[in-house]
Amino acid sequence: MIGSGNLATQLAKAFHRKGKNILQVVSRRREAAGLLAGLTGAKPVTDLQQLSRDADLYIIAVSDDAIPEIAKAVSLPDRLVVHTSGSVDQEVLKQVSDRYGVFYPLQTFSKTRDIDFSDIPVCIEASDEQCFDQLAALAGEISDDVRKVNSMQRQAIHLAAVFASNFTNYMYRCAEDILKSENIPFDIIRPLIRETAKKAGQQSPALTQTGPAVRNDRRIIEKHLQLLKNDPGKRELYAIISELIARNNPKNF
Amino acid sequence: MIGSGNLATQLAKAFHRKGKNILQVVSRRREAAGLLAGLTGAKPVTDLQQLSRDADLYIIAVSDDAIPEIAKAVSLPDRLVVHTSGSVDQEVLKQVSDRYGVFYPLQTFSKTRDIDFSDIPVCIEASDEQCFDQLAALAGEISDDVRKVNSMQRQAIHLAAVFASNFTNYMYRCAEDILKSENIPFDIIRPLIRETAKKAGQQSPALTQTGPAVRNDRRIIEKHLQLLKNDPGKRELYAIISELIARNNPKNF
Repeated sequence: MIGSGNLATQLAKAFHRKGKNILQVVSRRREAAGLLAGLTGAKPVTDLQQLSRDADLYIIAVSDDAIPEIAKAVSLPDRLVVHTSGSVDQEVLKQVSDRYGVFYPLQTFSKTRDIDFSDIPVCIEASDEQCFDQLAALAGEISDDVRKVNSMQRQAIHLAAVFASNFTNYMYRCAEDILKSENIPFDIIRPLIRETAKKAGQQSPALTQTGPAVRNDRRIIEKHLQLLKNDPGKRELYAIISELIARNNPKNF
Repeated sequence: MIGSGNLATQLAKAFHRKGKNILQVVSRRREAAGLLAGLTGAKPVTDLQQLSRDADLYIIAVSDDAIPEIAKAVSLPDRLVVHTSGSVDQEVLKQVSDRYGVFYPLQTFSKTRDIDFSDIPVCIEASDEQCFDQLAALAGEISDDVRKVNSMQRQAIHLAAVFASNFTNYMYRCAEDILKSENIPFDIIRPLIRETAKKAGQQSPALTQTGPAVRNDRRIIEKHLQLLKNDPGKRELYAIISELIARNNPKNF
């Protein structure tokens, strides 16, 4: 396992739980490498020069920017090498080995929240059929949802994930800020967040849009913009999303 | 019950389940009034002139725009009258009775998804202490989370709900559109949506922001903007939210 961040941590732990032998955790961050190695029975390594040649699979689970760097620094002919990025081309690994691929689990990870991978889609791309089969079999040991995904699709999935998770979290944060301004605890809105996500789990979100924008209720929209007058960022955000929602609803025209 | 929409339906059914006697369902929409009346053992009424004088409580659960209209049309001196809006001032009911208030359950409702009110916050505002106590007692029969909320707070809650629910649903919809453009089914992103909402149920979203914007990863941001080049609306939305997220993260400056 090359990397010791959120995804590296959750992935190494998940494979360890399935009885896989993690040989090394390789990371320049000595403390993080030591911690994750300790949790997974691996050897911590801080220098790429000490990378073992004996692994069946090398997982490069580092930030996107660091992948080319690592690819340049190591050569592992004939070894199966993958990265875990939603956006980086798999060809970056061509210089490392002629057996390479992408192992992209679609989820948001943190170090401290342990993740059950079983329902997490793992998107696989590989340099050839044989590598694909190996990666799919391995992914199948931790997840029930393994998918063959090409580069363009993976990019679209990553972009969709930014909307569905990162931007959604920012919407939650805006709600938190607004509530705070009137001394209302965030927990008041949690059942609503839960139900909204639950709906999206059962129906197409195109069919469940509610609120002033989809009704094109100008009175409420103006009132809300007025409430946000001292927060130009949120005000602009409110205006633009409302316009997009209204525009997307044919009933308004 | 005056109204036969999503909230009127769910609220009438919830009170009916608790053994409350719903006298009438009043709605100009004959079919909807008949349906909801049938479900709750009430009498359907399509003309406000036939409004019973015998109810202990009158719930005006109609669209915001229709509340003043109804308030003008009925006079119920000494009867307790509430509306259910997040944004409309309670004083609009002054002309109906001198005992009035607001009964605002914070949730997203649809007619077909039956809602368990027990964990839904019900925000109560009332013309006087005695009305408040009566409304709080009634709310307490369907919900374990009854809160005293003033007008300014209720407006803030409604605005926060637009971000946390309506706008969040729109983020889901953007994700769905993006996936569709590469023929990927929406279900691939559902575990991510679930986990993102779950995190917000346990932590402050200010602490759980992830993604390219909070890392100020310009390379990915540019790549995503490029992917959205044929969709100016989503492109602008992506740019603005990313900028707000980056700006909110002190690490980037």
